[in-house]
Amino acid sequence: MGVAQIRIVLVEPQGSRNVGSVARVMKNMGLSELVLVRPRCDPKDTEAWQMAVHGAPVLEQAVSVDTLAEALADCQRTLGTLGRTQNTPPEWQIGDPRQVMPWLLAGERGAMVFGPEDRGLSNAELAQCQRQIRIPTHPDYPSLNVAQAVGICVYELWLAQQGSRTLSSPSLTHAQQEGFFQHLEDFLLQIGYLQPQTARRKMQKFRALLHRAQPTPSELALLRGILRQWQWYTQTLPLETEKRGDP
Amino acid sequence: MGVAQIRIVLVEPQGSRNVGSVARVMKNMGLSELVLVRPRCDPKDTEAWQMAVHGAPVLEQAVSVDTLAEALADCQRTLGTLGRTQNTPPEWQIGDPRQVMPWLLAGERGAMVFGPEDRGLSNAELAQCQRQIRIPTHPDYPSLNVAQAVGICVYELWLAQQGSRTLSSPSLTHAQQEGFFQHLEDFLLQIGYLQPQTARRKMQKFRALLHRAQPTPSELALLRGILRQWQWYTQTLPLETEKRGDP
Repeated sequence: MGVAQIRIVLVEPQGSRNVGSVARVMKNMGLSELVLVRPRCDPKDTEAWQMAVHGAPVLEQAVSVDTLAEALADCQRTLGTLGRTQNTPPEWQIGDPRQVMPWLLAGERGAMVFGPEDRGLSNAELAQCQRQIRIPTHPDYPSLNVAQAVGICVYELWLAQQGSRTLSSPSLTHAQQEGFFQHLEDFLLQIGYLQPQTARRKMQKFRALLHRAQPTPSELALLRGILRQWQWYTQTLPLETEKRGDP
Repeated sequence: MGVAQIRIVLVEPQGSRNVGSVARVMKNMGLSELVLVRPRCDPKDTEAWQMAVHGAPVLEQAVSVDTLAEALADCQRTLGTLGRTQNTPPEWQIGDPRQVMPWLLAGERGAMVFGPEDRGLSNAELAQCQRQIRIPTHPDYPSLNVAQAVGICVYELWLAQQGSRTLSSPSLTHAQQEGFFQHLEDFLLQIGYLQPQTARRKMQKFRALLHRAQPTPSELALLRGILRQWQWYTQTLPLETEKRGDP
């Protein structure tokens, strides 16, 4: 999937200039689908067009809906953004844009949701999204203008797509990556580093780390080579399972 | 040096709202020093204050000067931003924000320079900077709003500072990193993946990959945990070296 399949959803935007700015920066980064939930401004007034500049086609096609659920209905992967520091349920793992964009791009159709200028998304709204992110900022003033927040997120989305493209041709590399993670998971289960019940969660950490490194195909081959060599090495050992665990 | 020692320079800004937005996002990312070269607007009019919100102190301290040279006089590292695709001298190596921010932070005092809304920086202005960057965008519409461009660059600057901080509280983490690489090398030699003569060269590839991933201390601990677990696992096997290599 490419960035063009990612929808931007603005919940109750108050400023038409912000809507116009969002349309412009979406166009800058190759996105085109803008959905507004209960806008509290005229999102297509003169000021919005002024700010949109060559993002005008995005603004023109923008649609308004009544509920967040409607805006997300046909999306498989949905990402909510925290506008500022706020208390969230402890079981949420709040990610950052750089980590999470590859996940968003890996679905068929995705959405990123941004809250109103004055309050950001509520926890109830955030809970309608599968994952949540917070943009890293100086702790003294974490509240970004909504168009700036969208700008940073679509920039990261664009880079994530470029990263996955330089990795190699789409389908093949996804298979390569998944093949590597499966191989790694098998290895970690075999040596007892992972337990079957908690494997998935711990593997997420290795996924995040590897996605950040954006390995080339030849680097991925190096890593798989280690796992293959390790298998060969243990097979040449006289494995006697009943003795395992002896002092 | 931290982000607070990096100055933002706007050449001939035309829109006071943009100046206010720049002040806000600078404050979001921990910057405070804003210099305007020959502003073509009143950079402190009502609209500028409206956009600055809690970035007002940055706007208040902003100063205007007559020449770019003046704005950069006391800076050791200077970075110019290309506003769009334009022909530049072939000997310039145009970087991107993510690559170049660590370089900017490594000096005593630095500046990032942004051009006017309508034309961006000229090659003559860019040539006054030591390095030049272009923000990656979709090729169809590379011209970002100036406040968005500043937003993306100061976000990258903030991340670069956080990255350098998490990587190393200098001496301890350097030791942690080297400890990990030594541990990995021992493991790879033991399983026969590395040969002593070529180990150093091959380890360089793993070093490059890990540096790109910028692991946190807890992620590094995860990786070392794998190596430790593997050691434990092989020690519980009945190792009989003379049988190795048998079919």
